[in-house]
Amino acid sequence: MKIIIIGATGTLGKHVTSALEKDHEIIKAGSKSGDIQLDITSPDSIKAFFEKTGSFDALISTTGSGHFGPLKELTDTNFRIGIDNKLMGQINLVLIGQHYIKPGGSFTLTTGILNEDPVLLGANLSTVNGALEGFVTAAAIELTDNVRINAVSPGVAEDSPYFFPYFPGHIPVKMERLTQAYLKNVLGSATGKTIKVH
Amino acid sequence: MKIIIIGATGTLGKHVTSALEKDHEIIKAGSKSGDIQLDITSPDSIKAFFEKTGSFDALISTTGSGHFGPLKELTDTNFRIGIDNKLMGQINLVLIGQHYIKPGGSFTLTTGILNEDPVLLGANLSTVNGALEGFVTAAAIELTDNVRINAVSPGVAEDSPYFFPYFPGHIPVKMERLTQAYLKNVLGSATGKTIKVH
Repeated sequence: MKIIIIGATGTLGKHVTSALEKDHEIIKAGSKSGDIQLDITSPDSIKAFFEKTGSFDALISTTGSGHFGPLKELTDTNFRIGIDNKLMGQINLVLIGQHYIKPGGSFTLTTGILNEDPVLLGANLSTVNGALEGFVTAAAIELTDNVRINAVSPGVAEDSPYFFPYFPGHIPVKMERLTQAYLKNVLGSATGKTIKVH
Repeated sequence: MKIIIIGATGTLGKHVTSALEKDHEIIKAGSKSGDIQLDITSPDSIKAFFEKTGSFDALISTTGSGHFGPLKELTDTNFRIGIDNKLMGQINLVLIGQHYIKPGGSFTLTTGILNEDPVLLGANLSTVNGALEGFVTAAAIELTDNVRINAVSPGVAEDSPYFFPYFPGHIPVKMERLTQAYLKNVLGSATGKTIKVH
């Protein structure tokens, strides 16, 4: 398969790339690294990206950032960081990518634990994660030609110790378990699901 | 209590207003009607609104629109309709309103069934509804002075027959049941919950 991995050089993306590159053609993409660069906050950049990749079998997004900060200091402006990046960035990958994906292909997005198990400072990401789960559920019933869409919802990952103080009592998730969730989505046959790796 | 109802003259808002106005001081708000007007897509308009209302005990939002259309025709532009209106409109009511609400007060937002039970053409609203549930879950653990936040998730409502063709097999929900869910949030003591009236 020809598989696009957005965020391929990030913590999680590296593991997923490593698990798939033996058997598949991987296009590594990122904002500053990888084979092809793109800015997921720009629909024009995403369109230009797919014009370069051409048609593909699977797209995995392991990217997307949000704002981490106290509710009292949240404003429309800093709340839009997660909306424009992790949320609309990943949604636009699908809205635009649906016109380039091959029949039988799949999209796999990344959400996260915070919409159901919130932590202090995390309201922006809780919102974004809930949104992505809703989107995946709905997009799955409209995609045609057997194209599938799913998400992976990571808990705090063992490779991200700088997050641990913000997630008291959360058990860090093994990268191997997380990686397998992405493989399940790409190589399996489910659609409309969010695999929770918590 | 001094209760602000955003969308007070809408289908749902009328029922909620009617159920509360005997025992409480109600400020009816809407984009074009009610006691005070505001544009929920504008943070400046929301701030000006709260400067007029002053402090309050409860805010109920029964408002917010999104885009209804085929996934294949969704773009960043039409997807932003729901993001800017039903999602960021309601979130900004809380982000700004948290600086005006009285201790022990409550926010009640409106989500909807589509994030867990999607219909064709509804991906934008599925996304927005999931986002609002995530936000409520997270905001509840950060609000101080016993301020609460909850949501109501209506199924298709009996008063909105023009939606029925888009919701095949959905059983329309009685307005009385929906109204009671809002009252439960305002007069009860839960926080961080979405009451599903499906």
